[in-house]
Amino acid sequence: MTTAQLVSEIKRKKSFLCIGLDVDLNKIPQHLLKENDPIFAFNKAIIDATHHLCVAYKPNTAFYEAYGIKGWQALEKTINYLNKNYPEIFTIADAKRGDIGNTSTMYAKAFFEDLAFDSVTVAPYMGKDSVEPFLTFENKHTILLALTSNQGAFDFQTKTVNDKELYKEVLETSKNWTNSENLMYVVGATKAEYLAEIRNIIPNSFLLVPGVGAQGGNLQDVCKYGMSNNVGLLINSSRGIIYASNDVCFANAAAKKAQELQLQMEVELKRY
Amino acid sequence: MTTAQLVSEIKRKKSFLCIGLDVDLNKIPQHLLKENDPIFAFNKAIIDATHHLCVAYKPNTAFYEAYGIKGWQALEKTINYLNKNYPEIFTIADAKRGDIGNTSTMYAKAFFEDLAFDSVTVAPYMGKDSVEPFLTFENKHTILLALTSNQGAFDFQTKTVNDKELYKEVLETSKNWTNSENLMYVVGATKAEYLAEIRNIIPNSFLLVPGVGAQGGNLQDVCKYGMSNNVGLLINSSRGIIYASNDVCFANAAAKKAQELQLQMEVELKRY
Repeated sequence: MTTAQLVSEIKRKKSFLCIGLDVDLNKIPQHLLKENDPIFAFNKAIIDATHHLCVAYKPNTAFYEAYGIKGWQALEKTINYLNKNYPEIFTIADAKRGDIGNTSTMYAKAFFEDLAFDSVTVAPYMGKDSVEPFLTFENKHTILLALTSNQGAFDFQTKTVNDKELYKEVLETSKNWTNSENLMYVVGATKAEYLAEIRNIIPNSFLLVPGVGAQGGNLQDVCKYGMSNNVGLLINSSRGIIYASNDVCFANAAAKKAQELQLQMEVELKRY
Repeated sequence: MTTAQLVSEIKRKKSFLCIGLDVDLNKIPQHLLKENDPIFAFNKAIIDATHHLCVAYKPNTAFYEAYGIKGWQALEKTINYLNKNYPEIFTIADAKRGDIGNTSTMYAKAFFEDLAFDSVTVAPYMGKDSVEPFLTFENKHTILLALTSNQGAFDFQTKTVNDKELYKEVLETSKNWTNSENLMYVVGATKAEYLAEIRNIIPNSFLLVPGVGAQGGNLQDVCKYGMSNNVGLLINSSRGIIYASNDVCFANAAAKKAQELQLQMEVELKRY
């Protein structure tokens, strides 16, 4: 999917919501455990109930890998279901990969070709030659970790390097990598006030923003400081939506929570 | 496996060799492609021919994920084969994972419980709460990326933070994390002269050292600057061993290359 198509979908749906599909068998409605593939059954119900309210889904691969082969099969079924039934949806493999050159190419093939995701999250620690292999894939997007939403972000990401915080050095440096137009960035909502400075460095790049809701971030602040001319924001919510209820009406409850966020986003899209 | 058991195996085998199982179907002997599971058939042959010459195997998960479900099954078969037939071998999932707290716990379960590896490589960018969940597993080891062997290591890892290079900040900071005795570190052989300073910070920790051979690192230099009182080194070689030949005698050729390295290691173990 191109960035222009993503922006067009955001305007059509009046939403820049991304729903995180972080499926934990201990948290899903227990009646689903009788299903042949409970993880996929859960995802399918959530997707069918919420696809018109969001523009992206983001399975975090950890939750699938933890269940071994069955988990990987559920991930494959989920991405195939999305690509077949809702091709207008932007799909994100939240995998936080990153390795040396030829190995990064293998990861890129895993997520862009074998699983046919539109994008994958990648860690920057190993530098340019660990990220550029992902950037060579046309109409695929690499979402680089910049400033994450957890407490550990302050261990290294905000330390000063070359008179600026490390995450800003990551933003600055990565702008010069080959095919950097295929980069997006992870920036946590819990540090919304940092977004203004981030926009000075990358005025137009899309930001994937976790941490609204469960982790305490505020949607209005994120939009105030982070919205760009082409919106430039994907706000992720996982637990707050998918675990809104664990009774038989869980998918409706998820849709209700998603709609609350979509309506707030509609207001923000009018404001800017 | 405990660190003491690993050291004991190193002394018994007179080897601190780790063999990287980075299986690329384009590079393995073509007669194996007729097998039901060519990746596992290749690994099994390599393992059976080399297990007495090395103390560790390190599959890089990228190479398995790139083949989807079949790749993941081959990885599972490989680790099960190792654990059943060669339980004295230290196993490393070279996955370079790292995510926020509850998600890192899922990754830890994937590699330590579901796949039953002894260790996993983890990226430090997201800080303490992304790594500590891995450290809670008893007799399991978390191998943190410090200074990698690729060119991109100079993009961020060697930049100055708090008057020292970022990778040294990672070493210093991680020493204070809970259960830090379960940490090991990735330090590339291509920067062997950095090892003396690294040993000032972490005198006893085990180092996983890639980059000997194909990437230009020198075994003697690594030992000179990096060997600790309890050896403290695992030297990885992947392509140089497993792709030594691609005819029907490929496993013997791999064993020959592994033995060359083991004999050099035997000399180094006597020297220090």
